[in-house]
Amino acid sequence: MFVATIYVTLKPKVNDPQGQTILSTLQNMGFVSAISVRTGKQIEIQLNSTDHTAAQSEVQSMCNNLLANPIIEEFHFTLTEKT
Amino acid sequence: MFVATIYVTLKPKVNDPQGQTILSTLQNMGFVSAISVRTGKQIEIQLNSTDHTAAQSEVQSMCNNLLANPIIEEFHFTLTEKT
Repeated sequence: MFVATIYVTLKPKVNDPQGQTILSTLQNMGFVSAISVRTGKQIEIQLNSTDHTAAQSEVQSMCNNLLANPIIEEFHFTLTEKT
Repeated sequence: MFVATIYVTLKPKVNDPQGQTILSTLQNMGFVSAISVRTGKQIEIQLNSTDHTAAQSEVQSMCNNLLANPIIEEFHFTLTEKT
């Protein structure tokens, strides 16, 4: 079995209203050292698969086709075997 | 300057409807090896701070007071200096 941990983030030039809201809330709470906030998603998928290369290409395909929007988002993932 | 990357996930026993929806969609798309999906948030914060210990305790406090809901979520973070 493999566990893929996928991180999907907005591309650097894409506006992040959620991050901006968090930033202004942090500053209002007194965390004045915070100067920038960017948000993203973490998706952990357990795969009932035995082959690392096959699992890797499957996760890549999941990201391209469902989990990330290639127009505004980018992603990377780690894949670890779990026994 | 420091960059904190915070990962907020639901506690293992908490239901994850978003993850369940992703799982059934993946399976409908033919990714039958996917057996479990859990979702979480990634929050990257740039801190205009010079002291590692102070930055660390500040991020801990941000998580406890705003970024994570301690009843249903858990978090961990990494803190790296950026020059």
